[in-house]
Amino acid sequence: MSAPDYAQLDRDDPLAHLRSQFELPTGRIYLDGNSLGALPLAVKSRLADVVAGQWGQDLIASWNRHHWIDLPITLGERIAPLVGAAPGQVLCTDSISVNLFKLLAVALQLRPGRRVILSQQDNFPTDLYMAEGLAGLLGNSRCESRAVPEARLLDSLDDSVAVLMLTQVNFRTGHLHDMQEITAAAQRAGALVLWDLAHSAGALPVELDACAVDMAVGCGYKYLNGGPGAPAFLYLAQRHQDQVQQPLSGWMGHQRAFDFDPRYEPASGIARFLSGTPGILGMAALDAALDVFAGLELAQLRRKSLTMTRLFMDAVTAEPALAELGCLTPRADARRGSQVSLCHPHGYAIAQALIERGIIVDFRAPDIIRFGFAPLYNSYIELGTAVTALVDIVAHRHYEAPRFQLRSRVT
Amino acid sequence: MSAPDYAQLDRDDPLAHLRSQFELPTGRIYLDGNSLGALPLAVKSRLADVVAGQWGQDLIASWNRHHWIDLPITLGERIAPLVGAAPGQVLCTDSISVNLFKLLAVALQLRPGRRVILSQQDNFPTDLYMAEGLAGLLGNSRCESRAVPEARLLDSLDDSVAVLMLTQVNFRTGHLHDMQEITAAAQRAGALVLWDLAHSAGALPVELDACAVDMAVGCGYKYLNGGPGAPAFLYLAQRHQDQVQQPLSGWMGHQRAFDFDPRYEPASGIARFLSGTPGILGMAALDAALDVFAGLELAQLRRKSLTMTRLFMDAVTAEPALAELGCLTPRADARRGSQVSLCHPHGYAIAQALIERGIIVDFRAPDIIRFGFAPLYNSYIELGTAVTALVDIVAHRHYEAPRFQLRSRVT
Repeated sequence: MSAPDYAQLDRDDPLAHLRSQFELPTGRIYLDGNSLGALPLAVKSRLADVVAGQWGQDLIASWNRHHWIDLPITLGERIAPLVGAAPGQVLCTDSISVNLFKLLAVALQLRPGRRVILSQQDNFPTDLYMAEGLAGLLGNSRCESRAVPEARLLDSLDDSVAVLMLTQVNFRTGHLHDMQEITAAAQRAGALVLWDLAHSAGALPVELDACAVDMAVGCGYKYLNGGPGAPAFLYLAQRHQDQVQQPLSGWMGHQRAFDFDPRYEPASGIARFLSGTPGILGMAALDAALDVFAGLELAQLRRKSLTMTRLFMDAVTAEPALAELGCLTPRADARRGSQVSLCHPHGYAIAQALIERGIIVDFRAPDIIRFGFAPLYNSYIELGTAVTALVDIVAHRHYEAPRFQLRSRVT
Repeated sequence: MSAPDYAQLDRDDPLAHLRSQFELPTGRIYLDGNSLGALPLAVKSRLADVVAGQWGQDLIASWNRHHWIDLPITLGERIAPLVGAAPGQVLCTDSISVNLFKLLAVALQLRPGRRVILSQQDNFPTDLYMAEGLAGLLGNSRCESRAVPEARLLDSLDDSVAVLMLTQVNFRTGHLHDMQEITAAAQRAGALVLWDLAHSAGALPVELDACAVDMAVGCGYKYLNGGPGAPAFLYLAQRHQDQVQQPLSGWMGHQRAFDFDPRYEPASGIARFLSGTPGILGMAALDAALDVFAGLELAQLRRKSLTMTRLFMDAVTAEPALAELGCLTPRADARRGSQVSLCHPHGYAIAQALIERGIIVDFRAPDIIRFGFAPLYNSYIELGTAVTALVDIVAHRHYEAPRFQLRSRVT
């Protein structure tokens, strides 16, 4: 099979112009947008203005004058169309971990008599840890965190399950769950469904409302490019909102926060999921980052993402020198997120060798190299260059150099 | 009584040089640092570097290369001396609200058989709301949030009280609790003590270790000048740390976060109080803001703060035209934070009239005008100007103009 004409693919790419909205380091190919999205240029000027112009000059008055106080809501409304949510259901606040805790507690309220949080064993750890934390706090009689192998998920939906908590795209393999089918199956069994969209929001169209999803959380710093540790978001379907009281009931979620009532009264709607004072610098950065999505058709984004991951897998499969690499990512388009995960006993060293050549990938234990394709800014030429480098490193065992054998703390 | 020579006081002020480290809007006098601290100049260049240099150029590698991953700990260690804590006990993370939840849950673990979170009725509302949220989640048999009038606090320390939760400086009145005496009284009754340092950290010396305090939380965006919604901090005394499991057990608090174990194992020490991924932009801003405190003697800061609040109260008392204003702030130095709270039936309108003249104060219902004095950047000349303006507005009832009668959302 001859190599595709990557340059031609770039010329034909209807999203190619978006790359210029990002700051990308010269001489490097960044394939780790699934971990930390690249810097949208708009963030630089926006943050400079928020700091020097708003905080520096207008100080406390900025909470109203520059609408800081509204950011959790307005950012939620900007994220909503990216995840298929009608207005009034998405809120930008805190971290995924903290938001999971709020929603899991609410799930138990909504399903009295059921005590199990069901998840899959290879879910992203913080999801499992937060369920474990809630169960530890409530005690085994009221809550149990139960993680099973993926293949046993649907069979495990017995009448003790209050909520099924899954990450839509698996962080290790890039496997994409069928949201519609699984949501329906869980709801038939009487459970709620909580989807973690960390690796889907901004990478592919998500249809929370159309799938009748109950709850979701998502990440601001991966495919939404909101910056390191950007605020996260949560979704709770309208139908559930006014029945619940979330446990992290801080003042910002009060119906009239600035009345300073001694008694808590939850705000109506999704705003009751606010806890403390929102971090405005992080919110402003995410707000600017979302400008890139304005007017964008998500189906087009998805097409490019699928083309890139398919081409990459095809190239790996076609290359005899790469036969020793396994591919953990499904070949079926409908089952794949926006990354390709290859495995190799020397995966860590291969990832390091790629990084040394300026091809920024990451590694997940025990043996996985993740190639993240961000359709907003990655080009086909970059993809081709990454393939060539991978072939050279693996074919000539360049990864065996001693400097690639030591593991760093964050990879 | 003749007016003090404010200009001379400024010339004699050993901290006067610090003002030049802040960006302060010309033509205004900012007396609301108790709500949002002014912008330290160092933040501007630091944030520009973190965004364009670190995120933009080094991307994911910045977590190690620029020590992002360590910021919650390193910032905690920088805050520690400001609150009288030996190393290993302070962590910078999340919001005060979220941190209160973690610590209150831990307090119940540490005091089995006791179920009451005791506080005072006019504590800052989020403190009460978070206790209420935890009690609502655990149920009345395991947790009760009980708020009593301040005068009844010590009498309410019966053997059902697991933890006494107080804010050291009252946000409405500026009243400063005696940390040593109250901590000792609560501990004699078998309770733990949790201090909220929102209005004390960075304004006055706090002695958590010396007072044998059990737990504390504090704010990054008031007297620490970390920016709007800056990350908060928490303190847990070393002696309690390894016995507890906090409920918001996210991946960043795992002993080996990057092993991605399916089971949670808390990090040793204070790091187990981390939950999700830290917001690096907010953390970097606070880190730069803390540079102002380098080499500063807190006793000197306190002397200036007390002098300013005393002079302001003296001037108000001495001025016949201000006789209709009440003063809620204690005159005793040992009982006063770094603000003066005056009250007047037309308090809202008076605050608005001051703001219109460029004297930025704030208002708290029903009738309180708060004058915050930030000894790092406020000058005595500013104090004198504020007094003159207040006298003019009140003596001539300038606040009765119709434009001052409407209430805005955040004041």
